[in-house]
Amino acid sequence: MHEFNLIKKFFLKLSNKNKSSLNLNDDVFFDKKKGIVVSVDTYNEGNHFYNFNYPDLVIKKILRSSISDLICKGVEPKFYFISASGNKKTFSINNLLKISKSLKKEQKKYGIILCGGDTTFSNKLAFSITSIGYAKNIVFRNNSNLDDDIYVTGKLGDSYMGLQILKNKIKVKKKIRNYFVSKYYKPDIQIGLSKKLLSFANSSIDISDGLIADLEKMLNLQNLSYQLFIDKIPISKLLKKLIKNKKIKKSKLISNGDDYQVLFTADKEKSRIILKTSKILGIKITKIGKINSNKKKSTIIDKKGKQILIKNKGYIHKF
Amino acid sequence: MHEFNLIKKFFLKLSNKNKSSLNLNDDVFFDKKKGIVVSVDTYNEGNHFYNFNYPDLVIKKILRSSISDLICKGVEPKFYFISASGNKKTFSINNLLKISKSLKKEQKKYGIILCGGDTTFSNKLAFSITSIGYAKNIVFRNNSNLDDDIYVTGKLGDSYMGLQILKNKIKVKKKIRNYFVSKYYKPDIQIGLSKKLLSFANSSIDISDGLIADLEKMLNLQNLSYQLFIDKIPISKLLKKLIKNKKIKKSKLISNGDDYQVLFTADKEKSRIILKTSKILGIKITKIGKINSNKKKSTIIDKKGKQILIKNKGYIHKF
Repeated sequence: MHEFNLIKKFFLKLSNKNKSSLNLNDDVFFDKKKGIVVSVDTYNEGNHFYNFNYPDLVIKKILRSSISDLICKGVEPKFYFISASGNKKTFSINNLLKISKSLKKEQKKYGIILCGGDTTFSNKLAFSITSIGYAKNIVFRNNSNLDDDIYVTGKLGDSYMGLQILKNKIKVKKKIRNYFVSKYYKPDIQIGLSKKLLSFANSSIDISDGLIADLEKMLNLQNLSYQLFIDKIPISKLLKKLIKNKKIKKSKLISNGDDYQVLFTADKEKSRIILKTSKILGIKITKIGKINSNKKKSTIIDKKGKQILIKNKGYIHKF
Repeated sequence: MHEFNLIKKFFLKLSNKNKSSLNLNDDVFFDKKKGIVVSVDTYNEGNHFYNFNYPDLVIKKILRSSISDLICKGVEPKFYFISASGNKKTFSINNLLKISKSLKKEQKKYGIILCGGDTTFSNKLAFSITSIGYAKNIVFRNNSNLDDDIYVTGKLGDSYMGLQILKNKIKVKKKIRNYFVSKYYKPDIQIGLSKKLLSFANSSIDISDGLIADLEKMLNLQNLSYQLFIDKIPISKLLKKLIKNKKIKKSKLISNGDDYQVLFTADKEKSRIILKTSKILGIKITKIGKINSNKKKSTIIDKKGKQILIKNKGYIHKF
């Protein structure tokens, strides 16, 4: 069963009386009266991270993934809690030292503080991270307007390429390998944007499952469709070069998830302020499509203006 | 390594600047300014719950365990989040229905609301629950005074006996079995006490690991010792009968954890108001010992006034 249906069928009614849960259809909980925003996520080895050979990098990846849920809502993360399940080997002194050092660096980089959590014994390695931020308002999901532009921050696909290289499915030189693997473990989340997002975005989500899967989630309760221009979707120079050399189609690379960039929609009139914000913050923000009425079908358009089909829309949470 | 040392060595410094984390030495995070209290816990199959044969009961047990962390601090739980890792079998339609029904009942019983979480695929079953409450103040750990009385709510040991019966280590008649197994899965947490606790308790903890292990945790950063009277420790009539029949020592049964009763200390002068509160709320509250200076050794005293040794102080979190 798709996770979305599972929630709708079994758990939505349990939150119904309460506005703050946002119908369990956003990645966060928001109590407007208290001004508190909470995100809870679990990360399993082999699923959310490749393996635990680099504990210092894995902890960075999952912590960034967790606070990305707040950042994309226009909220600065403030506190985090880590629940860790593992065994003697995964939590050896050496690994704990690495994890502790990494967390210290991440705390400094993102202005966040460890506030608790717990450790439990298990031969299956898993982490659960709860992130908390304080905010008077947030950018909601399912709040796009007809004719909104669709924007994305940063560049997509590097992280997925990093995973393919880690899995030895693609072989490249060491320097290239290091670049992509680093993007897999240390996604460039856009903390700087969190304060500004509320001033122009109508709706937002972070890209964790894949550009198209997450775009569809952002619109899932609305009578709207999207038009995406594949040529506009920003990718790095190195990825451009690599897909040329390896003869991979761009369309196969831009919707595989783990990008942790912010996908948002905004009124047409906001394009100037978005451009300005992008320049001031030094954060790449690219217009990649627009929101149409649901009388039109959602489409993805190539550089020749032809409609293309992307089979893999991203990671689907199924049971 | 003991969990306590692990936290102290690797993670305490990451929370140092922040008062709300309570030095990572309480089971909750408390932001006094915002008035928010958070508890995060992970539950693994075979470790925190026996198995998943009764998903409806397991979910009750772990949810009560989670909100018990707030209740024992004098805080009413308000919201909870569940992160669940499992596979198709554990999250079958039938099991999801059972879980959903159980949660609905628990929500009604304790006045709490599901506000989010996530589901991830894993062949190892685990849950992580985040509970949130709002409070201006809480009862802290490590805040006992010399000459305080030590109190405990409810009755201890039934839950542990339930686990022994589930494991077939002790054989009893069906009716007796049902009673103890029910106490294992559905501990009588003291939600009614949460509002009152602040008016008399100096320090508190919930008994999850075991009476003595948790008592020692409650005092662990203080220059104090304790004196416990084993005869005073409240147990149920059925447990009393069973240990008589099976010739089990009471001392072996009262500190094995999973009781989820509130252990607290209070000034001697508070004994009348505590007795009154106990009567009004219909919650058993028993004086079981007192706090001494650390010039004396901590002791457990039997009914003849003799000092006894309890080897098993409770569950120790080790890696």
